[in-house]
Amino acid sequence: MAGDILFNKIAFIGIGLIGSSLARVIRRDGLAGSIVACARTEQTRQTALDLDLADSATGDVAEAVNDADLIVLCTPIGAYGAIAKQMSAALKPGAIVTDVGSVKRSVIEAVTPHLPPGVHFVPSHPIAGTENSGPEAGFDSLFEDRWLVLTPEPGTDEVAVEQVAELWRRTGSKIERMDPDHHDQVLAITSHVPHLIAYTIVGTATDLEDRLKSEVVKFAASGFRDFTRIAASDPVMWRDIFLNNKDAVLEMLGRLTEDLSGLQRAIRDGDGDGLEALFARTREIRRSVIEAGQHIPPTPPGGDASDD
Amino acid sequence: MAGDILFNKIAFIGIGLIGSSLARVIRRDGLAGSIVACARTEQTRQTALDLDLADSATGDVAEAVNDADLIVLCTPIGAYGAIAKQMSAALKPGAIVTDVGSVKRSVIEAVTPHLPPGVHFVPSHPIAGTENSGPEAGFDSLFEDRWLVLTPEPGTDEVAVEQVAELWRRTGSKIERMDPDHHDQVLAITSHVPHLIAYTIVGTATDLEDRLKSEVVKFAASGFRDFTRIAASDPVMWRDIFLNNKDAVLEMLGRLTEDLSGLQRAIRDGDGDGLEALFARTREIRRSVIEAGQHIPPTPPGGDASDD
Repeated sequence: MAGDILFNKIAFIGIGLIGSSLARVIRRDGLAGSIVACARTEQTRQTALDLDLADSATGDVAEAVNDADLIVLCTPIGAYGAIAKQMSAALKPGAIVTDVGSVKRSVIEAVTPHLPPGVHFVPSHPIAGTENSGPEAGFDSLFEDRWLVLTPEPGTDEVAVEQVAELWRRTGSKIERMDPDHHDQVLAITSHVPHLIAYTIVGTATDLEDRLKSEVVKFAASGFRDFTRIAASDPVMWRDIFLNNKDAVLEMLGRLTEDLSGLQRAIRDGDGDGLEALFARTREIRRSVIEAGQHIPPTPPGGDASDD
Repeated sequence: MAGDILFNKIAFIGIGLIGSSLARVIRRDGLAGSIVACARTEQTRQTALDLDLADSATGDVAEAVNDADLIVLCTPIGAYGAIAKQMSAALKPGAIVTDVGSVKRSVIEAVTPHLPPGVHFVPSHPIAGTENSGPEAGFDSLFEDRWLVLTPEPGTDEVAVEQVAELWRRTGSKIERMDPDHHDQVLAITSHVPHLIAYTIVGTATDLEDRLKSEVVKFAASGFRDFTRIAASDPVMWRDIFLNNKDAVLEMLGRLTEDLSGLQRAIRDGDGDGLEALFARTREIRRSVIEAGQHIPPTPPGGDASDD
């Protein structure tokens, strides 16, 4: 079904890894009449044009959304409120606003108050990514076989929801609908806390004495490597995620630190049986992840995902 | 230089992922006159023979080491003391004992007292691995471009050290010599604590309410995936590592939990600048890891390393 236009004009507000990957699919399959990219820096706008991700580029949000049928928010989520305010007056009736943010409740609270009646907000979250950032880092297979979570509020226009779902279906995503608060809880444990832990442990290593630090880098293949990859993700994006999913993150972190204290005690007390029992149990979860087909990291064309 | 025999007879005590990978290199390049595999279960012995990793297999440690020039301990390290005791009387003068354990001080303390005079102990640790276990999981390129750390005590016969180093060089490893205590500190932060954290977070997820748990598996692609892979590593092996590197692990864990409390506070207080500053800093470490060429995970022939 390539070549059928789903939206006449699509505006990307921010066009990094996720936005540019979606734009690539839209270009590849001819799903939009035209694409406009809105980015703060001239460099990003130029890159978007050079990569043919957009027909035009601007630094002005109101100009970008003018006459757009679909607006995709792809900036760090902390900027959503200000962006929604800036675009408010320029949105055309019937326009659909969506986003790709990793937190959903706070995003709904930040965006909804600024939307005029007749404009639909369909929050979405593609569960996909790599640790690389920027429009050059995107690739059109990023979303294949990944989950795409939609979290529209009750009462949202179903036609609008379906149009957003259809766009994501074309990327190869599997669509799931969820309550925004529940989404935020699930993501806190599967994504936000793991990232926080990776940032912490790599940060702890950064504070080591110089000699130890250089050896940590040298022997990173022993497990540390995976944490450095996760902890290389975009700092501003992640700052905003933690600030906007505070409650769920702190709750999951509380559970985690309790469990960690328990393990610490087991090591101190030499409780081998307790350690082994936990380590055997966690293997089962890995098996479930493999059975669910969620174990293989995405591979950009021409290289290892973990290779910059 | 393939085909020149480095040791007349090599005995593997335990032959899992690491032992079988080393055995594959020895077979491929003809580095041993003969190999004997010692394993507790009949199944492992049969697999080792079926895969042509050994010329003979036995469940008896003394029988395995009889007349061996090199003995490679490849069991979980908690078993080393008992094994050293069992092989003690059967070791021939001039024999070299080595191992592949992830902790070195406690291994030296467990093995050395049982070795008769004239037998050399050259502890080694290949910084390589996957989350898979057992003789089938091994592959001959596992050690290529990875570090191999030797931690012989002062006064160890230098000819014996060099013979062990040369064997590992043939696997493609880069050789490093280190003080055992220093090794244990470096590995605590690069490997042992990351594994402990991964086990903890996957364990925390295991304890979630059923609905949340199934969604954690479903959306594992968001970061959790990497932790489940690490937490799928061999439970007995890891139990022994934590019990045998208690001091260094607890010290590094102490630093980590302090840093984690700081981050927790930053999230609670909404300190965006503090979060962003840390997240930007950890990116640098990733760059160093990539520059050091330690960022690409090993790939067994015919598949993704993270694919069982």
